[in-house]
Amino acid sequence: MAGKTECSMKIYQFKSGANPPRVRAFLIEKGILETVEFVHVDVANGVNRQPEFKAKNTKGTLPVLELDDGTFVAESVAICRYFEVTYPDPPLMGVTAKDQAVVEMWNRRIELGLFRHCDDIVRNTLEFFQDKVIQDEAVVRVGRQSAKHECEWLDAELLERRYVAGQTFTIADITLYAAFFLGARSIIGSGAQYPNLARWYSDVSQRESLREFA
Amino acid sequence: MAGKTECSMKIYQFKSGANPPRVRAFLIEKGILETVEFVHVDVANGVNRQPEFKAKNTKGTLPVLELDDGTFVAESVAICRYFEVTYPDPPLMGVTAKDQAVVEMWNRRIELGLFRHCDDIVRNTLEFFQDKVIQDEAVVRVGRQSAKHECEWLDAELLERRYVAGQTFTIADITLYAAFFLGARSIIGSGAQYPNLARWYSDVSQRESLREFA
Repeated sequence: MAGKTECSMKIYQFKSGANPPRVRAFLIEKGILETVEFVHVDVANGVNRQPEFKAKNTKGTLPVLELDDGTFVAESVAICRYFEVTYPDPPLMGVTAKDQAVVEMWNRRIELGLFRHCDDIVRNTLEFFQDKVIQDEAVVRVGRQSAKHECEWLDAELLERRYVAGQTFTIADITLYAAFFLGARSIIGSGAQYPNLARWYSDVSQRESLREFA
Repeated sequence: MAGKTECSMKIYQFKSGANPPRVRAFLIEKGILETVEFVHVDVANGVNRQPEFKAKNTKGTLPVLELDDGTFVAESVAICRYFEVTYPDPPLMGVTAKDQAVVEMWNRRIELGLFRHCDDIVRNTLEFFQDKVIQDEAVVRVGRQSAKHECEWLDAELLERRYVAGQTFTIADITLYAAFFLGARSIIGSGAQYPNLARWYSDVSQRESLREFA
């Protein structure tokens, strides 16, 4: 059809949540959002748990990237990795071996230390997840304590760096923003207790890419 | 001193645990274990929580890689990433963009789906961790249910593949082996319920690199 670019790559997603915007923000930072066709999956009605979608991703999670050879890639960071290798500029996952390792260290520290606890809290409290996971108050309690502890640590870490992994914006900042979207923002409150985290948040909130979290 | 190679790269670690062997297994698969000097950190006596070690890694976790320019890299997979880029052969994290994404997807699925729950169970049950974390029975209960569920899913996934990410051995197999070391082995029991997982376990257990888990 004339006037419309045909995209061979598809990303199956839902608009909100914490994970689909991580990938969209990554693509916007790279300036390649339009190279991908986005396909909505109706998570609210459980379409991601039906056989047709499970043929794409047996885990039923979103987002999922479909390559033009029919390969499916799940997991946000794995999808980002694909685009980092195929569209290296601007780099968001480091260039040299050392920088790649440092960015990966920071992305993991944020994911395993803060994002996972915020994600646990959301899944164990929101009504939306009541029929999808076994909700447990203890997991929420442990998650809140751990997330607060992580914010204290991270605030001290951000004293001398503009961004999470150093002086440039990387995937680790997108992951931290996603954690904030999931609830870490309520933990830092007015920011009085966490001045460096609050400064980081105010700084990155200006970026167009992060407006995908809504 | 004659007769001894001076290594500029150091890895701070303790011999056991689940994470230091992940890195050692990776280096053995690459055939580069001897390019690194290993430095023992006395975790049992809390040396990793003292200021001298925290100057290397403020999180106090192990292993930590020290590069010859004084950069410190924590997080096992980030350390592996450094060696994957500097010593590409044999590849353990994929070569093409697609393969890198697929291996990353699988490594994350195992880490976030199984390894983390096994790790939670260990930290919330072992006496060793009593004075190090807030142990909570509910976390153990949720972890056991989730780990069992993941093993069922993974068993079906392994029906048509020799290794976790496809027909070649990758970092995702090392991560799964680490999860087994942490307790998933007890979940699969005799293997009758999980024949494909049991076949995978029996196959990879032959590898010299995985004898690092002990």
